Amino acid sequence: MTDEPDTTADRRPGGRTARIRAQVLDAVRAELAERGHEGLTMEGVATRAGVHRATVYRRWRDVGGLLVDVIDAAGEMDWQPPDTGSLRGDLTALNQEIQESLLVQPSVAVALMAASFHSERAAQAQTRLWTHRYAQCEILVERAVERGEAPSQHTDARSLLIAATAPLYHQLVLLRLDPDPRLPERAAEAAVLALRAGAFSVRRDESV
Amino acid sequence: MTDEPDTTADRRPGGRTARIRAQVLDAVRAELAERGHEGLTMEGVATRAGVHRATVYRRWRDVGGLLVDVIDAAGEMDWQPPDTGSLRGDLTALNQEIQESLLVQPSVAVALMAASFHSERAAQAQTRLWTHRYAQCEILVERAVERGEAPSQHTDARSLLIAATAPLYHQLVLLRLDPDPRLPERAAEAAVLALRAGAFSVRRDESV
Repeated sequence: MTDEPDTTADRRPGGRTARIRAQVLDAVRAELAERGHEGLTMEGVATRAGVHRATVYRRWRDVGGLLVDVIDAAGEMDWQPPDTGSLRGDLTALNQEIQESLLVQPSVAVALMAASFHSERAAQAQTRLWTHRYAQCEILVERAVERGEAPSQHTDARSLLIAATAPLYHQLVLLRLDPDPRLPERAAEAAVLALRAGAFSVRRDESV
Repeated sequence: MTDEPDTTADRRPGGRTARIRAQVLDAVRAELAERGHEGLTMEGVATRAGVHRATVYRRWRDVGGLLVDVIDAAGEMDWQPPDTGSLRGDLTALNQEIQESLLVQPSVAVALMAASFHSERAAQAQTRLWTHRYAQCEILVERAVERGEAPSQHTDARSLLIAATAPLYHQLVLLRLDPDPRLPERAAEAAVLALRAGAFSVRRDESV
């Protein structure tokens, strides 16, 4: 373990501060995946990360602070929504990515959802992350409108995206049904068919 | 507290055994709603129910046993799916019921979902209950086919039902977005539009 006081030079991106954060958040993800949030402790994370406990307490204060930071770090990732050339293809690819993140064993994504039931701060961070991700995905709908795949400019993109992706979360996380390899495409297809049939439209009086 | 040994007469429905179960499960629901599953203890339930701890341990063994029984009891309820005269109306009514159960404060339904992340037995009981409820709701699709609202006999009823209801769970339980009073109807409408456009069909080679 090494933990000298930070110098100014160490605070630059890629410097010591960033390196310690990366080590600690890697340890949080590993502990979450192995033990769930119930088994997450400041001590366990410090030991696994090879960082002084005092540093972990000073920067993250408590387990809630670790959870919030690991969720925030996911939002800082350079994630790009799929771009396959069709809305159906994009939503299918998005759903495949979601399905993988939920099925990988152990799943950090599922562990973070479980933690959000128990930590109000983690829940808020999670809501911020989801909101950001769905906002990033609105480009899929904009591209679909440009290609003439979506009926008008008056599409409620977030409702469409939630309709397309919600069945994955519902089946795998809450219902815990056996995974269906066709579900990513079928859920995408159903959302696109509903869109073309006039669902998810923003009425003028609501779009103000 | 009263807890004499059961007599045969007490085991009949409505007898002493059934009454003690009702008291204990009422206490489990109240404790879950107030404290979440983390705060659920055999002692807390026994005290709240006014039943001897020894009885609670003997019949339910541990907290997992209490969770399983409270979920199983929900499945034993005489619940009937809505029957409004149209598929869209039925799915909207179903979604309204779901939305209420998720938004009531405190929500036993949400507490049970949280518990299912931590107890494999509770998760299995929950999956049984969901599977049973979705099976009960298949009648909505059968009626829609009879009324000519659904395009054919080859509709995958469960996929349709999951598509209609999943956005409620996703928005309220996982995303924790502000409740949208129009969501029950909009999610129902999107599912019906997708159905009419050919989504949720069982291809012949899959229906064997």
